[in-house]
Amino acid sequence: MTLTKSNVNVEEQAIKAKKASKKLLVLSESEKNEALNHIADVLEKDYETILQANEKDLANGKEQGFSDAFMDRLSLSKDRIADFASGLREVAKLEDPTGNILSDWTLDNGLQVEQITVPLGVIGMIYEARPNVTVDATGLALKSGNAIVLKGGSSAINSNNAIVEVMHKALAETKIPQEAVQFIASTDRKATNQLFTMKEHIDVLIPRGGGKLIKAVVENATVPVLETGVGNCHVYVDKEADVEKAINILVNSKTHRPAVCNAAETLIVHEDWLEKNSAVLVEALQEAGIHVHGDEKVMSVIPGSVLAEEDDWANEYLSTDIAVKTVSDLSEAIAHIEVYGTKHSEAIVTENADNARTFLSLVDAAAIYHNASTRFTDGGALGFGAEIGISTQKLHARGPMGLPALTTVKFLMKGNGQIR
Amino acid sequence: MTLTKSNVNVEEQAIKAKKASKKLLVLSESEKNEALNHIADVLEKDYETILQANEKDLANGKEQGFSDAFMDRLSLSKDRIADFASGLREVAKLEDPTGNILSDWTLDNGLQVEQITVPLGVIGMIYEARPNVTVDATGLALKSGNAIVLKGGSSAINSNNAIVEVMHKALAETKIPQEAVQFIASTDRKATNQLFTMKEHIDVLIPRGGGKLIKAVVENATVPVLETGVGNCHVYVDKEADVEKAINILVNSKTHRPAVCNAAETLIVHEDWLEKNSAVLVEALQEAGIHVHGDEKVMSVIPGSVLAEEDDWANEYLSTDIAVKTVSDLSEAIAHIEVYGTKHSEAIVTENADNARTFLSLVDAAAIYHNASTRFTDGGALGFGAEIGISTQKLHARGPMGLPALTTVKFLMKGNGQIR
Repeated sequence: MTLTKSNVNVEEQAIKAKKASKKLLVLSESEKNEALNHIADVLEKDYETILQANEKDLANGKEQGFSDAFMDRLSLSKDRIADFASGLREVAKLEDPTGNILSDWTLDNGLQVEQITVPLGVIGMIYEARPNVTVDATGLALKSGNAIVLKGGSSAINSNNAIVEVMHKALAETKIPQEAVQFIASTDRKATNQLFTMKEHIDVLIPRGGGKLIKAVVENATVPVLETGVGNCHVYVDKEADVEKAINILVNSKTHRPAVCNAAETLIVHEDWLEKNSAVLVEALQEAGIHVHGDEKVMSVIPGSVLAEEDDWANEYLSTDIAVKTVSDLSEAIAHIEVYGTKHSEAIVTENADNARTFLSLVDAAAIYHNASTRFTDGGALGFGAEIGISTQKLHARGPMGLPALTTVKFLMKGNGQIR
Repeated sequence: MTLTKSNVNVEEQAIKAKKASKKLLVLSESEKNEALNHIADVLEKDYETILQANEKDLANGKEQGFSDAFMDRLSLSKDRIADFASGLREVAKLEDPTGNILSDWTLDNGLQVEQITVPLGVIGMIYEARPNVTVDATGLALKSGNAIVLKGGSSAINSNNAIVEVMHKALAETKIPQEAVQFIASTDRKATNQLFTMKEHIDVLIPRGGGKLIKAVVENATVPVLETGVGNCHVYVDKEADVEKAINILVNSKTHRPAVCNAAETLIVHEDWLEKNSAVLVEALQEAGIHVHGDEKVMSVIPGSVLAEEDDWANEYLSTDIAVKTVSDLSEAIAHIEVYGTKHSEAIVTENADNARTFLSLVDAAAIYHNASTRFTDGGALGFGAEIGISTQKLHARGPMGLPALTTVKFLMKGNGQIR
């Protein structure tokens, strides 16, 4: 089957998800965990169905000439599906984020007040190619008592659809209603746009993917959005930076995984440090295969560098290219980050404690580092367990978002006739 | 001076606020408190300047034939200004919501991780008539280390402008830069609309006022919004409701202050309870001067009631009118609230513990009451101190929002060269 645009009714699906979300409210933690573990088992058992559907996506992808990296992210195997299953089993082991009493007190009149965590309701997940998001997001949503509406990228539509069919089959044998997981089986962008304004049925939208997708959701959605992702991250090497730390942190931040959001995209370097350490810097950059786009001072010092333009400062490379800017003091570095940063991860390398303190306090970002690689902004690396994304916004959740980001609170007031 | 549209540059003001917000980051709690107390002193001293400006607004209001209630909210006096000052002094006494370490831990590699509360940055406050918001919101913003851009209603523009001029005069003698408080002195709606999309300079918009204003902000803003206010609140009188509690809670929820957002707008009543207790209900409604819009069953029982239409279920009266709907069971009551509620405050009156539990768990609202008046959804009544509004959204803050709602978090990572 090749999925077409005509056979979906997005609003109906969202309404079903909302109804199912009410049923999730009365399930116990163990009922939710059993369901996740059962989905994991069935995914492993039915992996061949998923691989067959994946073949179709891969064939389509080949026809359309997608890059090798893209095809690799799209491609599934028995082992990858087993990883999806392990991921679900890990999520099942995490603490239930709902039902936590955050505070409780009694007013003088005897009214008991309780602030308790509850599921958000229905999560709308809008994402690009990778089919693992279909499983990961579903696991996190269900564990936190939420229903989910999944809208994946067109290139993975057959794989995602097969994964959801297998998950539905599994859910039929659990206490969680199948309707709690809705997959919008459409390649029509209009289907995505419909999700943007469904405030009645969807409680939050989480876009995961490139900057363009996220921007489209943030600018057009009236449903509240959890903004994730784009990281135009900087490493600032201060005048008083230790040479070895600076080189290690820079190279690690840039090259450990260049395509991810917490990778460094710009080096800001104090002119005195650069002058003194240009030889060792040049050697390290060459060894790591980093290609430099710099200002004029940088070009005069680093062989093979090209002149950086506005785009170089403003955008992510997601490759081993880097923009390099010289500054004459800390405040110039902070001002550059204020203009070009995306409030994700920013690092200073320095032995000067005052400068470190100033950087940590004045830079406005989710994660700010002193003498460490930007690569630690990650739920796994920080010990949070699975993450639904990395928030670059300030409201609700900032930085790596685990299960608690998928909850809200209610005030429960228990009285015996209290009036004002 | 009558303020005109031409003399404002909204973007310039927002940029100034952003710059000032950076200076607020390095002030101590006592420096912020001293500033608030000094503003309070100067407001009390310069009250006459403010009253003169208020006269202009009152004259304009009279000319335009505003209602008495509206004119009352607009009207200032020496005492009201003294109340503003006391409010600021109370805010100064509250705990500083910033700089709190929410959690800290050390990774195996020695990287120290700290999650700390910090100001949001710049708050955009968009509000209607009442000039007290100008002072209250400024106090809460500054106390939490935020700059603020104020856009008040046209009808109070002279009063608000005078209040801000007095506050600026006071700030000049404190450590807080004057630029941290920006007042958009324009009656042009375009000025408000400009704030909607200033993501670079404004971190959050808080609309306070009627449903139309809030809807306009939510639907058009790309800046994140803290949605406050509209409360289409219900009291559900269950089959097993105690008669005295039901009557007291209903009358208090409806009439204690009918124009506020936590007042009840609809009574949902179990048909058996109504049949049994119609005489006492009718007497209580008459005594309280409550005018009923009901369904057909209600009309047959309550003399003088008129037929309720869709609008009656869907909208706030903000008066002593009430919509009354009969139901045959709890689930019908919950379903009605799901359709017409605004996720603000919802109450059940019942002696049946199971029904109470079901209502508290299935109704989706900021505050849910068992056997108590909806009027307790209020920062003051709950003991939070001053509130910036009551959030009816699920993200970031829900229910009465005090100072913590005006903060976000940062992860501060302190290392000695850690890489991945």
